[in-house]
Amino acid sequence: MAEDLQPIGQRDGRIRAVVENVTPQIDDGRFAVKRAAGDVFVVEADCFADGHDAIACALLWRREGATQWQVAPMAHVGNDRWRGSFHLDAIGRYRYTVCAWVDHFLSWQHDLARRVDLEDIRVALRIGAQLVAGAAGRTQDAAERDRLQQWVQELARAAESASDAEALKHLALDPVLSALAARHPDLQFAYWYPRELPLVVDRERARFSAWYEMFPRSASLEPGRHGTFADCEKLLPYVAQMGFDVLYLPPIHPIGQLQRKGKNNALVAGPDDIGSPWAIGAAEGGHTAVHPQLGTLEDFRRLIARAHEHDLEIALDIAFQCAPDHPYVREHPEWFRRRPDGSVQYAENPPKKYQDIYPFDFESVRWRELWLELARVFEFWIGQGVKIFRVDNPHTKAFAFWEWAIDRLQAKHPDLIFLSEAFTRPKVMHRLAKLGFTQSYTYFAWRNTKRELIDYFTELAHGPGREYFRPNVWPNTPDILTEALQFGTRGTFMARVALAATLSASYGIYGPAYELMEQTPREPGSEEYLDSEKYQLRHWNRERPDSLAPFIGALNRIRRANLALQRDDSLRFLPIENEQMIAYAKSTPDLANVIVCAVNLDPHHVQSGWLALDLAAFGLQEGQPYQMHDLVTGARYLWHGARNLVSLDPQRCPVHVFRLQRRVHREQDFDYFM
Amino acid sequence: MAEDLQPIGQRDGRIRAVVENVTPQIDDGRFAVKRAAGDVFVVEADCFADGHDAIACALLWRREGATQWQVAPMAHVGNDRWRGSFHLDAIGRYRYTVCAWVDHFLSWQHDLARRVDLEDIRVALRIGAQLVAGAAGRTQDAAERDRLQQWVQELARAAESASDAEALKHLALDPVLSALAARHPDLQFAYWYPRELPLVVDRERARFSAWYEMFPRSASLEPGRHGTFADCEKLLPYVAQMGFDVLYLPPIHPIGQLQRKGKNNALVAGPDDIGSPWAIGAAEGGHTAVHPQLGTLEDFRRLIARAHEHDLEIALDIAFQCAPDHPYVREHPEWFRRRPDGSVQYAENPPKKYQDIYPFDFESVRWRELWLELARVFEFWIGQGVKIFRVDNPHTKAFAFWEWAIDRLQAKHPDLIFLSEAFTRPKVMHRLAKLGFTQSYTYFAWRNTKRELIDYFTELAHGPGREYFRPNVWPNTPDILTEALQFGTRGTFMARVALAATLSASYGIYGPAYELMEQTPREPGSEEYLDSEKYQLRHWNRERPDSLAPFIGALNRIRRANLALQRDDSLRFLPIENEQMIAYAKSTPDLANVIVCAVNLDPHHVQSGWLALDLAAFGLQEGQPYQMHDLVTGARYLWHGARNLVSLDPQRCPVHVFRLQRRVHREQDFDYFM
Repeated sequence: MAEDLQPIGQRDGRIRAVVENVTPQIDDGRFAVKRAAGDVFVVEADCFADGHDAIACALLWRREGATQWQVAPMAHVGNDRWRGSFHLDAIGRYRYTVCAWVDHFLSWQHDLARRVDLEDIRVALRIGAQLVAGAAGRTQDAAERDRLQQWVQELARAAESASDAEALKHLALDPVLSALAARHPDLQFAYWYPRELPLVVDRERARFSAWYEMFPRSASLEPGRHGTFADCEKLLPYVAQMGFDVLYLPPIHPIGQLQRKGKNNALVAGPDDIGSPWAIGAAEGGHTAVHPQLGTLEDFRRLIARAHEHDLEIALDIAFQCAPDHPYVREHPEWFRRRPDGSVQYAENPPKKYQDIYPFDFESVRWRELWLELARVFEFWIGQGVKIFRVDNPHTKAFAFWEWAIDRLQAKHPDLIFLSEAFTRPKVMHRLAKLGFTQSYTYFAWRNTKRELIDYFTELAHGPGREYFRPNVWPNTPDILTEALQFGTRGTFMARVALAATLSASYGIYGPAYELMEQTPREPGSEEYLDSEKYQLRHWNRERPDSLAPFIGALNRIRRANLALQRDDSLRFLPIENEQMIAYAKSTPDLANVIVCAVNLDPHHVQSGWLALDLAAFGLQEGQPYQMHDLVTGARYLWHGARNLVSLDPQRCPVHVFRLQRRVHREQDFDYFM
Repeated sequence: MAEDLQPIGQRDGRIRAVVENVTPQIDDGRFAVKRAAGDVFVVEADCFADGHDAIACALLWRREGATQWQVAPMAHVGNDRWRGSFHLDAIGRYRYTVCAWVDHFLSWQHDLARRVDLEDIRVALRIGAQLVAGAAGRTQDAAERDRLQQWVQELARAAESASDAEALKHLALDPVLSALAARHPDLQFAYWYPRELPLVVDRERARFSAWYEMFPRSASLEPGRHGTFADCEKLLPYVAQMGFDVLYLPPIHPIGQLQRKGKNNALVAGPDDIGSPWAIGAAEGGHTAVHPQLGTLEDFRRLIARAHEHDLEIALDIAFQCAPDHPYVREHPEWFRRRPDGSVQYAENPPKKYQDIYPFDFESVRWRELWLELARVFEFWIGQGVKIFRVDNPHTKAFAFWEWAIDRLQAKHPDLIFLSEAFTRPKVMHRLAKLGFTQSYTYFAWRNTKRELIDYFTELAHGPGREYFRPNVWPNTPDILTEALQFGTRGTFMARVALAATLSASYGIYGPAYELMEQTPREPGSEEYLDSEKYQLRHWNRERPDSLAPFIGALNRIRRANLALQRDDSLRFLPIENEQMIAYAKSTPDLANVIVCAVNLDPHHVQSGWLALDLAAFGLQEGQPYQMHDLVTGARYLWHGARNLVSLDPQRCPVHVFRLQRRVHREQDFDYFM
């Protein structure tokens, strides 16, 4: 018999409730769900028990490290699905889980309400008195205990004396009693979901950000002179005027001399060639040094401070690779793989060779020291005031390193933001996002047609990645001048940046190449820029009258003024009857802010199409006109019904960013739309 | 520094491969995936590593209890998805998992194939020699070690001497070397998926079965006499002739006298009323006793033996509830809940009372003893030779009990089959299937229209439940005489049983009520049969000329002869242009057996519709005729092209069950279709 009892196990067999399918969760809690401060965090679960007893559920959550759980109630939303939520006030790491139990008090009330036989109801009241006595016994609060004891006596007395079935039921179903009892449920046989699920709450910029990438060495206003951090300071008003939040600089470290590449990636550099900032490390230092021609560490710190005055944050590029003359190569030879002749293995993708770049060997026996040193590089720049890092090619470094490093760094500095620069296979990009990267580059640059854009942004906003993969979309980068831009018009540049700024809460451009519509490739078929800043200085005429800077500034101001554009979860595409046109809407949950965008994807011709709005979904009524306020041009259109014609000329502006305004008064006066 | 290293943890940071999203799996391995003996078990996983190195993966599996893993190779099927499989020869419990690693030998070969520079290739050969030496060092087999050592020398020699780049590459990519090296991969930094996923392999009948339910007490061929097990023996040829596999009997135990219900569920029984078999237990005994009027335990064992001679298995109904005079009530008062007056709490669903039924209290302090006793009931009947149990209302007993009991019983008797009789909320039904029930009742009885049938069977065959929820569909039961049957015609009865038998690999009917087309309800609006056998004896004229027994026999013979009908995973619905008609196909993976069904759902009128076949999906070519052999009527139709007209008369036969036969010779001779 003793042996027979063994397999029943430690769990109490009287636990009858079940919690399944808790959402959100990522890979069964292996990775953290991501949210931003200010969000309401909604959790759902399937909760049920055998039989017909009523159950109750609670959502439990706590800050990581806290021992006490906070409790949020859960309500049944149908088909054994329960929902609860709590408000995320503070950034940091959280845990949450769900608990459910068979609630005999609720079952008793539920049955009682349907009883008709007086004798039955009397018996039920006696059972109820026992249940309430149980609740009284669980109370720590003496006043509550007294009140519950009074209910016990009242139920017992009524069971003996009263003869009006309806009066007895009324007494037993009293909402005061219900509320009292609900505060002291019997959790003896409660089922606890077996996992505490992780949640990371980032600051708001993790969710909503506009990035501007710029080479500091081209910041000089003087043609031919190498730019400095001081020159960058002078450009801060220009960048701030365009409404960006993040000013991101390519690597600022000393550039290798050995195997240096020349202009346009020439295999051999000339004596004046300044090299690629991604060929990191030289006699002057490595990943924690500043390239002398840019200035000093102090200059850099001053740039950060000045940027803050313009509401701009400086983001730094972290590229974990070395030029052959990087100090690491000499000081830590065991961090690099060797060829049979003892030389360091350079990067290669046969038959191509990248002899100016030595990758780290993440299978080194000294991997622990390597990890610590790379984490120290981040710590060093955090010490200078950097809070945002764009990580170069993270997919070519060990996943386990990133998970460890980001977790470790954010534990100390929960306001850090890491942007993953990976344009590789989808599952690799998703893995990087899961293991901790705050934001991720996307395939947006190569999604150009209506079908491609709808499919891709539907996947980003509503696919399984929505809980952890925060897209940051770029129409160009120093490595990516797409064919669409090479062969595009001014309208193409306007359309692509408008799509980026409105389809995604986070986006960026590489400028001034973008706003000045640079579009010549190094050679036909290449996505490289001709005379790329990656290998040489450039001088930019930022005052050019055709610059897109004012247009981009308008877009960023619209983004800041409209909450709907500051998150992606409400994105829905709208039917528009023209294959060259795309339309979509974003809205706040209360519909106080509804943005409708329409974009002409044709670089050359005026296109028109009937755009269909689901009126009910936007709180509109059939037969009632509403106003579409184009926030780019300021024009206001009065629309009627679900279908309205939209026409866009790429020679002027290929995009409408409408704010939908419902009429609040009956007068035909535009002022009454809001 | 020591403290700094701590958080890196125990895992070796050099493990660079990742395994994610292993399928199939249920709730992250909490529950077992179900398969049947003879199946090929296919496992897929997302496997990848950082960077560009090649990886390799293996599928590992073992019988539960075995320590040694068996290995099956996995192949890349695109987008970082890998697939492997193994054959399930034996029933029982298994575990499986996936392992992946960066494979430097494969990476080396991959890079080498793309190298062009002779000097480069020479260096690569020296690296290759080191890698092959590593493989040699890992070999236990002396002969293989020698062969690998010869390759080491050959590669080293070639690296020094040869001058023909192509010849060197040819040598290094030799398939003999590749195969040798693949047998001895470097698993030093292999990633093991962190879970061993459970798999249950049942016998074939778990997947493919036809059930016939029959009340033994109505088995007598003499009107008015209580049937016996001996009478049941005489009906075995009748049941076997209809082609069923399982003969399922309602409870065979002594029936309670106290609070016994009368005919048609009358509250008070008359002196001759025989009671409901589900009101279990009386002075003569409880769940391990036989109702004296049916015969003895020995008679029952003989029935089982005789049934086997007819290829029939006896399934027993296990209903864990007690009549008030069940011995348990006296012997184990603590297994029942008490009312305030000390009496046992009967079943109720206010305002309804079921005073003839005492449910067990699964929150009893004596729950351990209760569980053991209930398991003993199963053991008792297993001891008599019963291997299949239909469990009555499992959803009103604790989930944890079922999981423990089924696991415990199947561990000793892996050939047991448990059918869950639960017509409750979908998530509860799924939970019961997850925690171990072999087969599950479904909502089929209430899915009648084309849309309902398509949606429901698509969900059953292709929804997430497909890995663990094996549907067993019943057009009727003693509790369920649907409105469709009440108001249906002979055609309705034919159509519903044909749908059940062809849409689902497992199905059942309650007879002879079904084949004799019993359709009168107890009262209008009720789903209860009038004069139900649940409360009284019935005498059936099984020889009635309009009986559906021959039709049902034909269906079951078709099922046995056609592998396509013996599983559900290939089910696909076919377009047919008539809302009263439904069409679908099932096929074996090699298309050697393709069954196409068309059913007229209209009880009264001839219906016709154009049925569309995706020719390519069935291995047919446009322009080539094919034969549709109706296995019910024997008729053969020559079809051309994708669209063909189907017409069905419910007065004659509302169903086609076609076997699709492709022509193998050009002659216009039907014999050449196969």
